[in-house]
Amino acid sequence: MLKIGILGTGDVGNRIGSKLISLNHEVKMGSRTADNSRAVEWVKANGAKASQGTFSDAARFGDLIFNCTSGIASIDALNMAGTNNLSGKVLVDIANPLDFSKKGFSPTLSVCNTDSLAEQIQRTFPQSKVVKALNTMGNPVMVDPELIPGDHDVFICGNDVQAKTDVVEILKSFGWKNPIDLGDISAARGLEMVLPLWLRLYGIFQDRNFNFKIAR
Amino acid sequence: MLKIGILGTGDVGNRIGSKLISLNHEVKMGSRTADNSRAVEWVKANGAKASQGTFSDAARFGDLIFNCTSGIASIDALNMAGTNNLSGKVLVDIANPLDFSKKGFSPTLSVCNTDSLAEQIQRTFPQSKVVKALNTMGNPVMVDPELIPGDHDVFICGNDVQAKTDVVEILKSFGWKNPIDLGDISAARGLEMVLPLWLRLYGIFQDRNFNFKIAR
Repeated sequence: MLKIGILGTGDVGNRIGSKLISLNHEVKMGSRTADNSRAVEWVKANGAKASQGTFSDAARFGDLIFNCTSGIASIDALNMAGTNNLSGKVLVDIANPLDFSKKGFSPTLSVCNTDSLAEQIQRTFPQSKVVKALNTMGNPVMVDPELIPGDHDVFICGNDVQAKTDVVEILKSFGWKNPIDLGDISAARGLEMVLPLWLRLYGIFQDRNFNFKIAR
Repeated sequence: MLKIGILGTGDVGNRIGSKLISLNHEVKMGSRTADNSRAVEWVKANGAKASQGTFSDAARFGDLIFNCTSGIASIDALNMAGTNNLSGKVLVDIANPLDFSKKGFSPTLSVCNTDSLAEQIQRTFPQSKVVKALNTMGNPVMVDPELIPGDHDVFICGNDVQAKTDVVEILKSFGWKNPIDLGDISAARGLEMVLPLWLRLYGIFQDRNFNFKIAR
């Protein structure tokens, strides 16, 4: 069993954190402040293996870290977590660089095409092993692929082969049978750039329980 | 049966044109010059209902037009086809705005995120009814979805409802059971932005006979 730090107290952090607890990992949820009310609620709901603290506390605690902050706040949050606390560790980036600032419009990406959030994180924290994963689906599906009938896919990418192996093991424990490894971290461009299609489909279906499958 | 203009003499134009001929449509393939060797070859191979000429000839001929030119050349090609020849007609845009100018790197998109090639075309030719379709897969799959086992998806979007109905009818004649209508032409952003993921998967599989399916 692992000690895992979750950065972010939103729906994604809650969902991933609770799943990891159910799999007997020890999880510390981190936020900007040590007394975030959502993190406190989450700890109450998840028992003795759940704890909470600052971003820095969670990063220091974890042997492996999940970035579940909103994409446009991720670099700030990771800086608060601290380069030393993230160094040498697997950092799973689930965030999407969505910019919601234009009210009344669909969010756009704050970075895309020639760069990605995951690459920005890898450049900013070169001693961490960034693995992009799970960003291409709604959070209920992330930890429970059986919500959707039939086969469908989760993608990963990253520069460190062992880090990807570690993340694949966690994904398999979530129920994902065959994660598709897209290669190095620059593949995160493509993974983040599917969000506009995902958002459009969500608007049409009015239901986020769908996912991409690569038919072959 | 329809009279259809195909703009572009590459693999996509050849594939779409030959499929349309096999379905008994009359097809004129257009290019920059009236004596393009690939167009001449295509006419020879496709019999009496196939003809060729300039972009302008093909656009004038067609009741419906397919843009099968390379994305970064599309606006130029459509200008050569002529606003009047395209006016009032359904213009199916299959192109992707891929920029191959950086040698040794994967192509990037010349437009994305807050705009798309299909929207650029619709703005440049406001009297045409632009429908984005088929750009999210390799050209063999476009006209023969049964190349890939099981269900998988084709997406369309556009501002004109009747134009989309016309295109859906053609797609069904190609073998597509349930094209997914993503709404207005701005959904083309999402459709064009899946190309980086498609290209990465193609690089890994070394086989372009795969396609996206939306699992629900």
